[in-house]
Amino acid sequence: MKTYTTKNAVVLVSGGLDSATTLAIATSQGYTCYALSFDYGQRHRVELEAARRVSEKIGVVEHKFIHLNLDSIGGSALTDSRINVPISGLSDEIPVTYVPARNSVFLTLALGWAEVLSAQHLFIGVNAVDYSGYPDCRPEFITAFEKMANLATKAGVEGYSFKIHTPLIHLTKAQIIQEGLHLNVDYSITISCYQPTQKGDACGVCDACRLRAEGFRALNVADPTQYVT
Amino acid sequence: MKTYTTKNAVVLVSGGLDSATTLAIATSQGYTCYALSFDYGQRHRVELEAARRVSEKIGVVEHKFIHLNLDSIGGSALTDSRINVPISGLSDEIPVTYVPARNSVFLTLALGWAEVLSAQHLFIGVNAVDYSGYPDCRPEFITAFEKMANLATKAGVEGYSFKIHTPLIHLTKAQIIQEGLHLNVDYSITISCYQPTQKGDACGVCDACRLRAEGFRALNVADPTQYVT
Repeated sequence: MKTYTTKNAVVLVSGGLDSATTLAIATSQGYTCYALSFDYGQRHRVELEAARRVSEKIGVVEHKFIHLNLDSIGGSALTDSRINVPISGLSDEIPVTYVPARNSVFLTLALGWAEVLSAQHLFIGVNAVDYSGYPDCRPEFITAFEKMANLATKAGVEGYSFKIHTPLIHLTKAQIIQEGLHLNVDYSITISCYQPTQKGDACGVCDACRLRAEGFRALNVADPTQYVT
Repeated sequence: MKTYTTKNAVVLVSGGLDSATTLAIATSQGYTCYALSFDYGQRHRVELEAARRVSEKIGVVEHKFIHLNLDSIGGSALTDSRINVPISGLSDEIPVTYVPARNSVFLTLALGWAEVLSAQHLFIGVNAVDYSGYPDCRPEFITAFEKMANLATKAGVEGYSFKIHTPLIHLTKAQIIQEGLHLNVDYSITISCYQPTQKGDACGVCDACRLRAEGFRALNVADPTQYVT
């Protein structure tokens, strides 16, 4: 039996379009939100400033940043500067922008903080439609993680449960944007690009930029992204 | 179907008695070992020196240290200096030395490194007998974690599996020590204490010290621990 005794939620906020929408959804559903962001050695660290803007604008009780040198593990174009970010378009394979076990790492740290906060809800903006190449964005991963989380913590012992919310998991990018616009998300302050400039301008050619731009195009809505000129 | 194509292993090494024994077991079973340790803001940080000594003496290909400010999350006597380490003996409740979601966090980071190394084996010295108060030391947690790990990564997609090895899980402390002595583990270089001195001397009264001392006593073997005098 699932038991949730609070509406406190830890929301993973990267500063991108998906996590901003996720935070807006959590807020609109009445959750009291605590934002968590990671400085994990990513090359697009300017996104942390975007995360700060997003959390402030949408409104959270607290915003925590955890430092974690995932670049010492490497194995991804996002954490190893020797591996280039692909700019030639999406393929069917798991892209080199996949960061080994990243979502599990982020979710376990969110879980630890949630346990301290007595927050039983975790929100993550994973999406299985437009990012189907990442194994840790699949619904079956989330289900397995939730089961693990309830055994890893005091939850089972003390009679409550953790729930992992993934409100975007089955939406297309256009549907995500539509939902966010409905909730007044200001996408001009978000950064999706894998390799933005120091100023935060988007490259326009990486997978994250392509998917984002296609989403706005499909909706026939003006794209507020600031691209490199 | 489980598929393991290498005998490379990532072994979590804390510098304590259990993880030293686990590393010795992994080595004796023919695994090529990579040691992983965490500087997570623990008050017993001198254990990291012990971890270095243990990995060097038993022999690993590489020893990686990951920095992670779990103290910013707090919620445990081991990461929050305002919470005292209990010294009055074991109780039936989850002790305040439990660090929220610690083993899940450590294992997900080990998983990330393992994926980069093409290592399919993870070793962790959890024990469900003498530490039954910690939810993340239970066999059902390990089983759930392994299932999650195989969905979180390229494993399933690329046709191999991760295995979480817990060679100590059903052993008493005395049995662990017996196994380690059989494998020539030098316990004098390990530190189990939750609040050792800067020099690494053990307090003798915290739960970790008590369990360790009882183990040596039960075996009728000289305890090589250097206690505060």
